[in-house]
Amino acid sequence: MTLLPDRDAILAAARRIAPHVRRTPLLRLAGADLGLPHDIVAKLELLQASGSFKPRGAFNRMLSGAVPPAGVIAASGGNHGAAVAYAARALGVRAEIFVPEIAGAAKRARIEGYGARLVVGGAAYDDARQASEARAAETGALMVHAYDQPEVLAGQGTVASEWQEDAPELTHVLVATGGGGLIGGMAAYYAGTDVQVVSVEPEGCPTLATALRAGRPVPAPVGGVAADSLGARQVGGLMFAVAREHVAAAVLVPDEAIRAAQRLLWDASRLVAEPGGATALAALLCGAWRAPAGARVGVLVCGGNCDPGSVLA
Amino acid sequence: MTLLPDRDAILAAARRIAPHVRRTPLLRLAGADLGLPHDIVAKLELLQASGSFKPRGAFNRMLSGAVPPAGVIAASGGNHGAAVAYAARALGVRAEIFVPEIAGAAKRARIEGYGARLVVGGAAYDDARQASEARAAETGALMVHAYDQPEVLAGQGTVASEWQEDAPELTHVLVATGGGGLIGGMAAYYAGTDVQVVSVEPEGCPTLATALRAGRPVPAPVGGVAADSLGARQVGGLMFAVAREHVAAAVLVPDEAIRAAQRLLWDASRLVAEPGGATALAALLCGAWRAPAGARVGVLVCGGNCDPGSVLA
Repeated sequence: MTLLPDRDAILAAARRIAPHVRRTPLLRLAGADLGLPHDIVAKLELLQASGSFKPRGAFNRMLSGAVPPAGVIAASGGNHGAAVAYAARALGVRAEIFVPEIAGAAKRARIEGYGARLVVGGAAYDDARQASEARAAETGALMVHAYDQPEVLAGQGTVASEWQEDAPELTHVLVATGGGGLIGGMAAYYAGTDVQVVSVEPEGCPTLATALRAGRPVPAPVGGVAADSLGARQVGGLMFAVAREHVAAAVLVPDEAIRAAQRLLWDASRLVAEPGGATALAALLCGAWRAPAGARVGVLVCGGNCDPGSVLA
Repeated sequence: MTLLPDRDAILAAARRIAPHVRRTPLLRLAGADLGLPHDIVAKLELLQASGSFKPRGAFNRMLSGAVPPAGVIAASGGNHGAAVAYAARALGVRAEIFVPEIAGAAKRARIEGYGARLVVGGAAYDDARQASEARAAETGALMVHAYDQPEVLAGQGTVASEWQEDAPELTHVLVATGGGGLIGGMAAYYAGTDVQVVSVEPEGCPTLATALRAGRPVPAPVGGVAADSLGARQVGGLMFAVAREHVAAAVLVPDEAIRAAQRLLWDASRLVAEPGGATALAALLCGAWRAPAGARVGVLVCGGNCDPGSVLA
């Protein structure tokens, strides 16, 4: 048995979580509507339950074994916390969510709205993670890691299995990277295909690009407009083993491109993406990544947990 | 030859406009996420080019015959104007759009952003319509009516043909009514099926309910939160002939239910619907229409042209 999920593990996860998550739709957008030289196929994961892709991994972790009476515990910049809270409510188990001070008010309110206990666990994500681990050791609750657990990677990888089924023509998919659970799971799925997975990160929190340069997960700066969803201090060890082999490129984008992508998603298609959710598209807008001739490009819009008015701010 | 579009005319329209409009996706939402006793299948027509269903009719009208050198002309509370402007730019023809004073700033800016000439043509929609007709007589431009032309009905009816192909299990579809071009075209398509079409209107602008009571199109009040998209003074004659036979029910909803539907679409799925776009869902929230046992319910979310922050206002 390997710790890393493979295609079969991801397809098993897809069956396991199917009753609980949404099969998010695709939207084909013309290049002319985006100011791009080619069309894109956007996967609207921002329409997922709880507003991001995160419930996929949370449900897969919680459904892969028994949940103890103390329930589940998680540390999160916001989206993972909301997802674990959502999944816990759906499955009827208790949840404690540790958030860093950086977590926005809307994300905190959502976590509490799903009925979880919210704890502010320190200044940055890593502090909240340490506090959550101490608490889990105390209560015996099941830790649902934001990205670095095999079941979490397999759950996030179901974004890729759905996308491949619904848009088999794609040659490249662009995915934002924070802690790397999403792109790690997706790259594990696409490993057996010809699809190239491209990582896009804000210049302000370049976890994967920094790790690839170092040859191992190392701490990276945490800052910029997308820090509240992509601001993990470093990528997970599990995802790194996958990414080193199966992520085709890891590009960086400035905050201005992320803001421009948020505005464009609204102007061209009335989608409200949070900064992290617009980061993949930003790579096309600023030219950090250019499609080779003949490419059919997928862009993952992975989250929409922000003040809706902020996309035009 | 009949003036009313039938199923074949709508399928022909679908082929005609396919290169120019988006096939809008479906989103299956669990009743538990909505506080409803049943699931719904939402069709996300708010993600259509220009932010509403209106380009379907506009393109079909403009592609069904030659456009004169003077271009096209339209009167619109906003969405139709944006759609005609969008379609004119795509097809490389000139456009003049007459709007009533009630049209919001965001909708006006969008019309001008697509390169059309914008004219404020009076206090209410009907004044703008009269001004546009006088101008069309002067210039010879092709009039693209907001709802009461066979090609426009057939174009809007393609919402139904797509939906039927993508969700053949539906037994009921809920659609907001203003001038009635959308529901008229859709009811014409569904006429040969078992699908029941339900009209939902704000209490403040009850054009179809008033017409059905009178036995013919008659003026109705124009007011409430959705007036800028649903506030036609009366339904079109063409749609009325269809609606009398093929609209199963015409219900009214209060503005508070429309606002609640906007908030719910954001909270449950990160969708930003304008008031008219949330009106169909409002009927389920306030109980103006209840699904019979075993029904499989479709809800059209038909527009998103508002200030995104306004959905939480």
